[in-house]
Amino acid sequence: MSSVDTQLEELKAEIKSELPADISVSDVTYEGPELVIYTRDPKRFARNGDLIRDLAGTLRKRITVRPDPVALSPPERARERIREVIPEEAGVTDLDFHEDTGEVVIQADKPGVVIGRNGATLREITREVGWTPEVVRTPPIESSTVSNVRDFLKQEREDRRQILERVGRQIHREELANEQWVRITMLGSCREVGRSSFILSTAETRILVDCGEKPGTGESPYMDIPEALGAGANSLDAVVLTHAHLDHSALIPLLYKHGYDGPVYTTEPTRDLMGLLQLDYLDVERKEGRSPPYDPEMVREAIKHAIPIEYGDVTDIAPDVKLTLHNAGHALGSAIAHFHIGDGLYNVAFSGDIHYGETRLFDGAVNDFPRVETLVLESTYGGRNDYQTDQEDSERKLVEAINETHDRGGTVVVPTSAVGRSQELMLVLEEAMREGEIPEMPVHLDGMIWEATAVHTTYPEYLRSDLRDRIFGEEENPFLADAFSQVDGGDDVRREIAEGDPAIVLSPSEMVTSGPITSWLRHAGPDPDSRLVFVDYQAQGTLGRRIQNGLREVPIDDGVGRSETVQLAMDVDTLDGFSGHADRQGLENFVKTMNPRPEKILCVDGDERAVQDLSSGLYHEYHLRTFTPKNLETFRFR
Amino acid sequence: MSSVDTQLEELKAEIKSELPADISVSDVTYEGPELVIYTRDPKRFARNGDLIRDLAGTLRKRITVRPDPVALSPPERARERIREVIPEEAGVTDLDFHEDTGEVVIQADKPGVVIGRNGATLREITREVGWTPEVVRTPPIESSTVSNVRDFLKQEREDRRQILERVGRQIHREELANEQWVRITMLGSCREVGRSSFILSTAETRILVDCGEKPGTGESPYMDIPEALGAGANSLDAVVLTHAHLDHSALIPLLYKHGYDGPVYTTEPTRDLMGLLQLDYLDVERKEGRSPPYDPEMVREAIKHAIPIEYGDVTDIAPDVKLTLHNAGHALGSAIAHFHIGDGLYNVAFSGDIHYGETRLFDGAVNDFPRVETLVLESTYGGRNDYQTDQEDSERKLVEAINETHDRGGTVVVPTSAVGRSQELMLVLEEAMREGEIPEMPVHLDGMIWEATAVHTTYPEYLRSDLRDRIFGEEENPFLADAFSQVDGGDDVRREIAEGDPAIVLSPSEMVTSGPITSWLRHAGPDPDSRLVFVDYQAQGTLGRRIQNGLREVPIDDGVGRSETVQLAMDVDTLDGFSGHADRQGLENFVKTMNPRPEKILCVDGDERAVQDLSSGLYHEYHLRTFTPKNLETFRFR
Ligand SMILES: [Zn+2]
Ligand SMILES: [Zn+2]
Ligand SMILES: [Zn+2]
Ligand SMILES: [Zn+2]
Ligand SMILES: [Zn+2]
Repeated sequence: MSSVDTQLEELKAEIKSELPADISVSDVTYEGPELVIYTRDPKRFARNGDLIRDLAGTLRKRITVRPDPVALSPPERARERIREVIPEEAGVTDLDFHEDTGEVVIQADKPGVVIGRNGATLREITREVGWTPEVVRTPPIESSTVSNVRDFLKQEREDRRQILERVGRQIHREELANEQWVRITMLGSCREVGRSSFILSTAETRILVDCGEKPGTGESPYMDIPEALGAGANSLDAVVLTHAHLDHSALIPLLYKHGYDGPVYTTEPTRDLMGLLQLDYLDVERKEGRSPPYDPEMVREAIKHAIPIEYGDVTDIAPDVKLTLHNAGHALGSAIAHFHIGDGLYNVAFSGDIHYGETRLFDGAVNDFPRVETLVLESTYGGRNDYQTDQEDSERKLVEAINETHDRGGTVVVPTSAVGRSQELMLVLEEAMREGEIPEMPVHLDGMIWEATAVHTTYPEYLRSDLRDRIFGEEENPFLADAFSQVDGGDDVRREIAEGDPAIVLSPSEMVTSGPITSWLRHAGPDPDSRLVFVDYQAQGTLGRRIQNGLREVPIDDGVGRSETVQLAMDVDTLDGFSGHADRQGLENFVKTMNPRPEKILCVDGDERAVQDLSSGLYHEYHLRTFTPKNLETFRFR
Repeated sequence: MSSVDTQLEELKAEIKSELPADISVSDVTYEGPELVIYTRDPKRFARNGDLIRDLAGTLRKRITVRPDPVALSPPERARERIREVIPEEAGVTDLDFHEDTGEVVIQADKPGVVIGRNGATLREITREVGWTPEVVRTPPIESSTVSNVRDFLKQEREDRRQILERVGRQIHREELANEQWVRITMLGSCREVGRSSFILSTAETRILVDCGEKPGTGESPYMDIPEALGAGANSLDAVVLTHAHLDHSALIPLLYKHGYDGPVYTTEPTRDLMGLLQLDYLDVERKEGRSPPYDPEMVREAIKHAIPIEYGDVTDIAPDVKLTLHNAGHALGSAIAHFHIGDGLYNVAFSGDIHYGETRLFDGAVNDFPRVETLVLESTYGGRNDYQTDQEDSERKLVEAINETHDRGGTVVVPTSAVGRSQELMLVLEEAMREGEIPEMPVHLDGMIWEATAVHTTYPEYLRSDLRDRIFGEEENPFLADAFSQVDGGDDVRREIAEGDPAIVLSPSEMVTSGPITSWLRHAGPDPDSRLVFVDYQAQGTLGRRIQNGLREVPIDDGVGRSETVQLAMDVDTLDGFSGHADRQGLENFVKTMNPRPEKILCVDGDERAVQDLSSGLYHEYHLRTFTPKNLETFRFR
């Protein structure tokens, strides 16, 4: 009998002794980080709302209770009863019964109503029909991304259960190492922006944090070295993804191509957005004439292996590692990944990308942790002069720029990341238009911006609470304002828009030598009445950065594979107040008010100058031990 | 056709075009780092002494010429002619013909006479008989270690040729990496003394430097991590061994147990001494009741895979790495390993253990290099107060201590390393006795000291020149002085010596809780007229260090597996002037006069205090960037 089986036998005995005698325990298994208890008496279980919570406290595990199949009402009868139990206003749109696990997935417009106060309605459902309800939100804006992911996971349920069981046994394996140490290997994003990737390793466990590409170069993290995949992809215990942007996520599917078969821990919205962005990435690679590093099939593998975690939930991901994700304020579902290692041995937090203050979309990044000795901190705007304008100022300037451009009949083109900044700008534009600060005019959302927006509205828990309320207020969803429309078509449609009446265009910026933005440069670029407004960080070496720096003869792809040069006559502005990244002040404030203050800070994900400035600034200001690691280096902390 | 085969074809063509038309080239192959040219005209080749040197210069390769079998005189005729060509005084003791390679190994008392001025006699031999002569020295003191190694290698010739061919093709493979970087991973000896081990890696190549145990603890370097053997032992390109001491060499054979099948580059004496010490190490492990980490068979594998290099020879060991070994002054064959990486990309030197000044045995460590950006520097005596007495002073004190002990009828016991310090002390004692500074009395050499001494006399090229001359002067070999005798027997014999007339004992110190030194402590320890004299560095945690620190109730093994306590009544002295290690001053001088001065120094192989003191001392004195790495860390240089 393996040590995990022994452990489960012992847990079963302990659970039996903790539960009232009339509740049977037919089986106890691990599914991923969760302990699953099968019972023939789900209704009795449901009667006592505290039983599960108490058990979880005693066993110090996350617990799920599932009905043994014998305890289930037939689906058709159950469906009827569930419809009766759930109040009408919940807006149930789908019920989906899974006999293998005794779960019923309830999709509804208002999940809160399905859940009921403190879960009362859910418990009532189980009491009535035996099934375990799981609630998901019906996307307020239809999202093919979300429905594709949900359909796919439904179809792969059996596979997924096997994955979860294997992962669960792996997490709860007996600890074998007889030494304790903690180290971090830098696979990318050191003294550069992009290709974020780190290995956090202990004597027992190896965890990959992020695996992104380097925008504008196609460079990958150093995956071939022994510390990464050299010893085989399956020598990794876990992958943790801070957020969906490609500079953090693009190469996650590649791990599965290399034989990795373990979990990706991330938030639910990041899982969905990651799929959306990765598929687009493959598309772009193909269009650029490069051979994509993996197939769409591998994106599905990554999604199948994703284990969603909510902010604040402490999750066992290895015998000696607990992971907690915290809001990073940077993009939908973006997280700071906090690792608690050993039993109080060490704590490391990876910031991913952060925004310290609140934005229209998100609360500011969390910087309050039970313990943290080392912080791996993004430094995009870490340079000594990298102070951004207040968003208010930038908004005022944007309004002026739009009015000016509108008055002279031009088009305002804003290249921006489809996930995060686009939605922030939509909120700005919707308000400005509603309040009459800018004239009513069409706002064209190009590429995947619309789809990304739909995903945002599916996960309002991850948005600021006032925004969440607005999305669910009937006519009030700002993302559904009349001005917004999706660009539907190719180069011709974009030319019509660029040459037509005054308009605003939000276009994904990820690609600047081909893709939508090229069309906009070609058609609006030569028009001196039009205007290009940068609102995102433009990485060194990208076309965006070069245009910011004054390049006006812009080499682009003509859409049929040839290269041409566009003469930019449009105005070029940079408004940095909309950034999803903390500026230098924000990074300092994040550290200054961080609780507890870390002993060591590794400055990463900023160019050479930015990390050096931030590192020496934090050292002099707060007397922390700060470092500017190089790629391929390994730091030991314990 | 593989790229190596193509390369060899091209080389063959180039060689043919460089050679006179009457010299045929039947084959060209790699054997380890050497390019081997087979010719049917070895005699014509030998006629022109410059041909090989010129070719080596043109091709920038080390070249060996071998006769095609058709060109060889029959061994019996050749034997006769060779005897005639070599002058009588050379003292030829053996001729050994290898038809597979056309080599004849000539063992002689005076190899120099066999070689002749600038190799004239060797060339004459080839001209006469076609065979390629290789000369080895007949050990002046018979050494079973040396003869065992030589016999073993003779027996394994065929295997060894295959190994060398494989290694040769590996070294000369096409460079595949499209990036260049250089890094060092610390597997041991950081902030501690012992278990020296490092990985030097580039995008193309991974090299293990040393692989020792930690004395007194049995701890190994971190071999299980991905950077070491995690990706499979055969992912290493090469192993380089600085010297034979077990804290640098003990676990080299373990690599072969793990499937490593590549070369160990080291000096010839280190190869032989390593085998001697490793076999003893296995013995001790067994006697201590631990299960040895590998079998003697693996020691033989290591010897079979050893590729001896002479001091100063620049040797290709990978497509992008050239190795040069330089005298380190620390022990017989001990070397500083200098790596030239890429084409001028980077240079790193690993000091191994060094002695900066000259000793009776050796010249001082070399600190003159063509280039060197990073020095990995031993720090055993790096502490701020680690100044050793001059050896002269220590010798005077030793003489006094011996006289005093002699006069009161006691025994002087000197625990010391069998390789290096023992021979240095023998030279001191022999001179003192010859010059009448101490009375004639027996000097008992315990354990493997005698055997180690014999190995020293086999490789006089590695000794100071005046000592070399004395060893070959007829009656003058100091190691053969009458006073010296080997301890032949067990505990009883040692008791008799300890309880008998005044005497001096040199006993291997490697083991202090069992082994010879235990006998001496048991029998001489309680005698207040006797004396224990430490002359070596005693690592933290070892029994030696604890006795130095005042421990007088000494737990030892009673020889039959039980533990007993000996009450030490003998005097205990420490004389640090005989150390094989540079003291703090020596380390500073080594760096100060180093040419060129390195940019970075990594202080290793010293306890926490020693590395910190040395690091900050060198930083403040010479404004170098100094580091005190931790085990498991990786530094990147390029
Ligand atoms: Zn981001
Ligand atoms: Zn980032
Ligand atoms: Zn970013
Ligand atoms: Zn040594
Ligand atoms: Zn050493």
